[in-house]
This record gives sequence, structure tokens and C-alpha cells, in this order.
Amino acid sequence: MLKGFSVPMTPNGLASMVPTPPWHYVGTNMAVEFIADADKIAKYLPDGLEPSGGRCTAFFCDWQTASGEIPEAYLNPQMSQYKEAAIMMECTYKGNKAAFCPFIYVDNDGAAMRGQVYGYPKQLANIYITRTFGIKSKAAPEVAKGGKFAGYAAMDCGRIMDMQIELEEPTDQIAYPHFANVIGLRQFPNLRKADGYKPEILDLVVGAGGSGSAADMWIGKGKLNIYAQSQPELEDFMPLEVGRAFYQLDEHTLTDMKVLEDLR
Amino acid sequence: MLKGFSVPMTPNGLASMVPTPPWHYVGTNMAVEFIADADKIAKYLPDGLEPSGGRCTAFFCDWQTASGEIPEAYLNPQMSQYKEAAIMMECTYKGNKAAFCPFIYVDNDGAAMRGQVYGYPKQLANIYITRTFGIKSKAAPEVAKGGKFAGYAAMDCGRIMDMQIELEEPTDQIAYPHFANVIGLRQFPNLRKADGYKPEILDLVVGAGGSGSAADMWIGKGKLNIYAQSQPELEDFMPLEVGRAFYQLDEHTLTDMKVLEDLR
Amino acid sequence: MLKGFSVPMTPNGLASMVPTPPWHYVGTNMAVEFIADADKIAKYLPDGLEPSGGRCTAFFCDWQTASGEIPEAYLNPQMSQYKEAAIMMECTYKGNKAAFCPFIYVDNDGAAMRGQVYGYPKQLANIYITRTFGIKSKAAPEVAKGGKFAGYAAMDCGRIMDMQIELEEPTDQIAYPHFANVIGLRQFPNLRKADGYKPEILDLVVGAGGSGSAADMWIGKGKLNIYAQSQPELEDFMPLEVGRAFYQLDEHTLTDMKVLEDLR
Amino acid sequence: MLKGFSVPMTPNGLASMVPTPPWHYVGTNMAVEFIADADKIAKYLPDGLEPSGGRCTAFFCDWQTASGEIPEAYLNPQMSQYKEAAIMMECTYKGNKAAFCPFIYVDNDGAAMRGQVYGYPKQLANIYITRTFGIKSKAAPEVAKGGKFAGYAAMDCGRIMDMQIELEEPTDQIAYPHFANVIGLRQFPNLRKADGYKPEILDLVVGAGGSGSAADMWIGKGKLNIYAQSQPELEDFMPLEVGRAFYQLDEHTLTDMKVLEDLR
Repeated sequence: MLKGFSVPMTPNGLASMVPTPPWHYVGTNMAVEFIADADKIAKYLPDGLEPSGGRCTAFFCDWQTASGEIPEAYLNPQMSQYKEAAIMMECTYKGNKAAFCPFIYVDNDGAAMRGQVYGYPKQLANIYITRTFGIKSKAAPEVAKGGKFAGYAAMDCGRIMDMQIELEEPTDQIAYPHFANVIGLRQFPNLRKADGYKPEILDLVVGAGGSGSAADMWIGKGKLNIYAQSQPELEDFMPLEVGRAFYQLDEHTLTDMKVLEDLR
Repeated sequence: MLKGFSVPMTPNGLASMVPTPPWHYVGTNMAVEFIADADKIAKYLPDGLEPSGGRCTAFFCDWQTASGEIPEAYLNPQMSQYKEAAIMMECTYKGNKAAFCPFIYVDNDGAAMRGQVYGYPKQLANIYITRTFGIKSKAAPEVAKGGKFAGYAAMDCGRIMDMQIELEEPTDQIAYPHFANVIGLRQFPNLRKADGYKPEILDLVVGAGGSGSAADMWIGKGKLNIYAQSQPELEDFMPLEVGRAFYQLDEHTLTDMKVLEDLR
Repeated sequence: MLKGFSVPMTPNGLASMVPTPPWHYVGTNMAVEFIADADKIAKYLPDGLEPSGGRCTAFFCDWQTASGEIPEAYLNPQMSQYKEAAIMMECTYKGNKAAFCPFIYVDNDGAAMRGQVYGYPKQLANIYITRTFGIKSKAAPEVAKGGKFAGYAAMDCGRIMDMQIELEEPTDQIAYPHFANVIGLRQFPNLRKADGYKPEILDLVVGAGGSGSAADMWIGKGKLNIYAQSQPELEDFMPLEVGRAFYQLDEHTLTDMKVLEDLR
Repeated sequence: MLKGFSVPMTPNGLASMVPTPPWHYVGTNMAVEFIADADKIAKYLPDGLEPSGGRCTAFFCDWQTASGEIPEAYLNPQMSQYKEAAIMMECTYKGNKAAFCPFIYVDNDGAAMRGQVYGYPKQLANIYITRTFGIKSKAAPEVAKGGKFAGYAAMDCGRIMDMQIELEEPTDQIAYPHFANVIGLRQFPNLRKADGYKPEILDLVVGAGGSGSAADMWIGKGKLNIYAQSQPELEDFMPLEVGRAFYQLDEHTLTDMKVLEDLR
């Protein structure tokens, strides 16, 4: 009897790339709100989600994870750490505000698979994010007025996006749209020719049973560039206008998911 | 209407990590046959496959790919090239000889997803493989008697396996067990707690409609080490005895897959 | 007139891999003291340094840097961040206690060159280090009694070393031996056959004019493994006994260096 | 007595990143000739070299190496393989035609150090190059009329350059300017403030005592892009006009170097 939340499945289930939930996350998040061309991006929504304009947010996140099954997974940092770059777009689902993620990148294959399982189209990329440290130094920004942070992401020798933010004041707000109310598109491909290679799984999904908190929340101003260099179609999300920037520490736990609709 | 064989699905389907089949492959393959502990490895077979002893083969492959959809994909070498390290074990399916792949590693995320789609539990690793070149040099082995080639694979800071082969004479044989008659275990995880996190998809699958050819086929002797350093449970495949070694050029096309059994 | 502290030298000096000093560093340091075979390691000291026993320290450091020339270099995190694994051994120089670094690894080529310039034999490796975050989470240790941190380093598909520490109580001590009183061996190779390929530069060097401070200093217990897998001769530093463990935040500035002796 | 052509120097000299010469190389080379702005690039020549116009060549090379000291180094492919992207510009030295290399990138730290030793300003980058295989496949170009090959290089999340060539006919020519008559600028930085941080070593150097041969030499047409994304000052080499393209197999041995002038 093979065991494992994901492949590889093995007699004891210890080789699984992704551990069984709950999944615990902690990390820093940078976000810059922007406006993209509403008509161009509307076409990126799956059936069931309705366009509601051109508002988007770009994120850079620097994560460490653990799970119920491997509580001290942070002692395997090569498995439990990853960096992330993502774009979220506003939309509605049955009349309610929601967010959808058309493009997202991580630098760890377990994190990529975990994302695919709950509806994020994660690909691998090289990602770099400025850090702060708890000691004053010319080599790091402080989480304080004037503190500056940057993020860079590239895939297959091509820049995908870069961001720079400058903190202005503490806030209790978060960027909009946001991961917080995302609806995912879970997909698993199908190699059967007789099916026309149509996906084996194609569902709208939403997280359930999660919890979390934030700290060190700041608002400020930002710069954002999105590139058409190596990611086909990403150019449709070029920022027409760049808005507010946000920084925060975030911790949350993810334990469950619901399928909203089967789109096949 | 979103398009794409895999995620990310986009309006024009150009961003998909994996192109629509047919998938064309060309590359060099090194193989070393070995005997593992038959009792230990029997437990790695999914339901439906029966153990038939301790014969295994370790492979290192150096691939370049294209597809019907992207015929000159080799002009994006960052997407179309990958290296692979794999272990195949003998088994039977309904009384017929077959092979099963408990562990396999690649260095490209598109290749990893493609493998997962047809039943290979591909994880990312760093992989290095000796090359030959079509000009005589002290810096490369020749595909000739005495030619030596090596492969190394590591994941998460730990060595997984290494191999060295020395060519002895041309052959028309291939290693046994082999990719050629593999039955895959296709799996897609399930984050729904109510299902006990049991896989959404768990199938025995087999390739269909493929074709291919080989060249420069040599047989010889080999060395093989498998490590228990960073891959849990891999230690069950430690070689008790090492057998014949093989080298070849291989090209093949994969177009279709059949589901043999739904194991859920 | 070409400019640049290092190559590439260019008309404006902006392409240099390493900026002109002062160099500012900030980061976290983990250390585990150990005893190696005093006879074996004595042979790793260059002329001018005298052996004083088998005491060594292994370090994992997680750095971010800036410089006088590029004060906000942390906004290019891909250049300014690096992780480091190192071994320091005790010795004496003209009767005074000192430390020497026989093996050190980083994951950034600018950091490697910078080290070579002041006497560290830096090679590239994959390095992973547990992080703490300023928010309570199951996904990260706290800098507090019982907090556990780990580090892993691998080069060329082979594990070099790994470490795990558990914090016990605040301290004002640091590990011994330590970077703080290191004497470096600055070397630049020589491709001229007529010189017998003897180094062009071979000096004992010592930092000068530096300054720094530490915070969050903790002492505890540790585990340490050193591997003979891919780094020739590293096996001479296998720990016979493992001692105290340390954790701290560190910031320092390096501005100058002295040549103590020309060893050619 | 410490041994080693380069650091780390050890009792047996086995840990050196770079082995003692002779150095043997084998690999494939792609080249595209181009014209850059002669005035802009003239400023990239060190003292002693004279500008002679705007002719440049961009190269992508896919190498495997061995040495007299480690004859079967190709059995450590992780050390002995590397890919390279380079720009060469025409110049003269004492009235004779020569070439100078202002920017060059490799994906292996030993190769980077080896280059720095003989006057190439090598930095690390991610580099990908199309391969051919000795078996007919839709997944690879042939070395024949119509065969297409591509190369991509990126550093620190930014594209540096990309190239595509199409073979037209066999040739006995090579690109101009070329590695074949390069004069290098050997530099080693100096951290001593009292010296104003002026380089410790700054020499014009030239290879000596080498030998080599080529095969599968083809000429054709090419495309070339150079980017100003992550390499400061590289924009001065933007192609104004793109010329002939070349492909070849190359093997050569390097054993010695002469210092032409000390530029300090």
C-alpha cells in the first residue's frame, strides 16, 4: 500500500514532495497595486469568474514552511524555503468580489506542486528579494519610514518582473486584489489523444479552514515593471498605472480546499 | 476560453509549461543494471503490479525535446533541454513483464510536469552527465571501446546516485528492466480534508502510439552508487550487485497514453 | 582609462563584480565548535602560521551586503545576498592566537571573488540556512530557548557539511576559533610555465580598519557533519568531538587589509 | 607545504578549483559577427591596445575540459563542463591585429577563475545552447544546410544576450574578431586602502604554446540581441548591424601564457 500526499508515493510516505496538510507558512510580503488593460486581462479569467476591471496587484514573497506531518521542516531549509512572484487580478464570482492569479512563480519544486494542487499555475523562476535584519546596518533597509525593498524574478533567461517599494507609514490595510480572497483554477493535464488532450481536472477551487495573522504592516509607494521577454502572453498585464505599495510579515495555515465548479 | 495543455492556461495557450503532444525526444542514455533487495522493493509497487524479483536498472539521460505544437522548441534550449536520473524495477502486470519507476529526477520543471502527467514521480535535482563530441580530444570520451562516461545526481544538498560506465563492444541489446515497457502511476494530490487528502487521481497508465529508434548502442561494465542522504526511503534500492552497462543514442515520439486501472 | 575594483573593468567602472570598499555586511551566523585531528589539520597551515591543536569552528552565515560605492546595493538582492559555509581552525602567528580558514563556500560569484581578494579560498556551493521571522509561526524557530536552526551545503552534487543547533541561553561569547581574528592566505594563480605555475600572489593577509557589532547572541548545543563526498581532502577535518553552538546577528564593515608576509 | 594551482591550497593539492595546465578543451562554438559603435567601444580597450573600428563577434560555446593533472576530468562533469557567452572586439597591439574581450560569462566557478587567470573578465551567468545529436530527430537540428541553433545568457535575473544562427554551407573560415588572437587583461583586485584600491595585478597577457583543431565548420546567417538589463555598460556593445554566422566543433589545449605589459 503506497503512501504519500504527492509523488513519489512510497511504503512509508516519507518521500512525498509535498507533506500532508495542515501547511504552515511564514514570510515577508511586498505588494504593488497596478492597473492593467481591463479588456486584455478579462480574457484570462476561467469560466465562472467575471471581469470587474483592470485592478491588479504584483507580489514578491519570501516564505518558510512547515506542516503538521513535518513540524520542524524548517530544519530542512532546502525543502521548506521558497521565494514567490505573483500577479493577482480582480474579478467577481457569483457577484462577489474575488481575485484570480494568472501567473505565479516560485523557486522550489515542492512549492510549485503544492500551488498547482490548490489552483495556482506555479512555474519555476529565479527570484531575489531584499531582506531586513534585526540589527542596524548600512547593508539592509529597516522596516521604518524610508525603508526600501526590491524584488526581481526571471524565468528561462528572461526577466519576468521587478518591483521596488519605499515604506511611508504603518497601516492596517492590505493590497487589493489580494491572495486573501483568491479563487484558483486547479488543472491537471491529460495525455490521452482520444480526449483531445483536454485537462483531466479543471476546477474552480477556494481555500477553506485557513487562519493567519500579519505584523509590521506598512504602506508606501512603489515601482513595478513587467516584461514580455520569456513568458508568452504576460505582456497583457503591463502596468498602465502604478498605485500603492505594501509590506508585511505574514503567517498563515492552510488545511482544506473546496471545489466550487467543475469546468470540464 | 482559456487554452493550454498545462498551466498557466491563457487566451492563446502559449504560456503552457508543457506543449500539446506529440512530444519528440532525442538524447543519450546511460544505464547500469543492478540487483536490489527483492523484499524491500516489492513494497514500492502500486496495486495491480506484481513483484517479480530484485532486478533494477539505473539510468542517466541527457535530453532535448520538441513538440508538434512547437517544432523548433530546441531554439529555446532553456525549456527544451533536461537531464534525467531514474531507477526502474522489474514487475509484472496481469502476468506480463513490465517495469515500474519508483524514483526519477530531472532538472527542468516542464519536464517534471510532463513526467507526472504520464506516471513518473519526477522531482527536481542537479544532474551532470559526461558528453562525447564529434572531434577527437583529451577532454571527452569517444563512443568506442574503452570510452568512459559518468553521471551524478543530487537533490536538496544530498547525493542521490552516481554511475560510471566503460564501453566494451557494440550491442543490439538494451538494459532490463527498461523505460520501454514501463507502467506508470499517475497521481494528482487532493487538498480536501473531507477526502482524507487521498489523491484526486491515482491510475496505472501506459504510453500508446509512440515510436522511436536508437543508434550507437554499446554494452560494457559499470559502477553504481545509490545514497540515503536526502531522499527518504531511496535506501531500499541500494545495489546488492551491479551488472551490465549500456550506452545509446535514442530518439522517440510520445503521442498518447492509456489508463489501465483507476486505483482509488 | 578603464575603471573597476575588479573585472570587468569598463570606462565608468560600473560593471565591476566587486564594488570598491568600504564593504558593509549584515546577517545571521550559526557556529558549532569541534575538535579535528590536530596532526592532520596542521598540514593545512601556510608558512608563517603555527599549529596550536585541533580546535575548529564550522559556520553557516546568511549575508546581505552594500558598499560605500553602492550604498543601496540591497536593492539588487541578486548581487548583494549570499550564504556561506566555512571552517576555521586555530593557529598562532608570531606567538599570538589566530585563526585560519582552509575551506569556505558561498553561493554568489561576487562574494567568492571578494573573499579571494582578502585571503579566503571561496568556492561556489548550494547552501541553505533556517531563518527566523519576527512573527510567531509553526513554520519558523524563534531566537529563544529551544529554537533550532540548521544549515546544509553541497558542491558539485556532493554534501560538504550540515549543522543543527539548539539555543539554550543568551551569551556574550562567540565561538573559538572565529573569523574575528583570521589571517588569510591571498593567492592568485599563474599560468606561466616558465615559473612552474607557481602562484603570482601568495601572501598572508589580515583585515584592517574594520568595525562591527552583534545582537541576539545565544549559546547552545549543536550537531555537525562534514563529508568526504565531493571536496577532496576535506575529510581531514572530520569532527572527532562536537562542542558548543552559537547564534547571532552580526553587522560589520571592512575597509582595508594588510599584507603580513609574501610567501613566494 | 601547501599545494594547488589555485585556492583552496591543501597538503596534496587535490582541492584546487583549477588544475595545473595543460588544459584540454572540446566543444561546440556558435558565433555571430556584428558592428558596434566604434567610438563607444574604443573606451573599453586597456592601455597598450589601439582601437581599429567597430567590428565585434558574439560567441556561445558549450565546453567540456580535462587537464594533464586530471586526464579523465570528464568523469566529473559537474566540474569539467561549462557554457560560455562572450563578446570579442577588434583592436591592434603594436600595429598587429588583435582581439579584446570586454565581457564574458560562464556557468561554472572553476571556469570563471581559470579565465580570470589568463585575462578574461569572466562572470557567472545562466547560459543555454541548442545541441545537435548524432541521430535524426525532430527534437534537434542537424549540422547541415538549414540547421538552426540558438543561445541565451542571463545574469542576476537579466538577459545579457541571445543569438540564433542558420547554417548555409561548409566553410574553412572563422569569425573575425576571434578568441584565436585575443590579448587578455589579467587583473587581481587590491583591498589595501593605502594603494587607493588600485589592482594588485594589471597586465596585458597572451596565450602561448597552445594547439588545436576544428571540424564541422559551417557559415550562415545569424540574429543577435544584446541587452542593457542587468550588466552595466554592456549597452555600448549594442549591434548596429549583424553579419555572418559560424558554427564549429573545436578542440584545443592551453599550456602557457606570456605577460606582454604590466599596466600598473
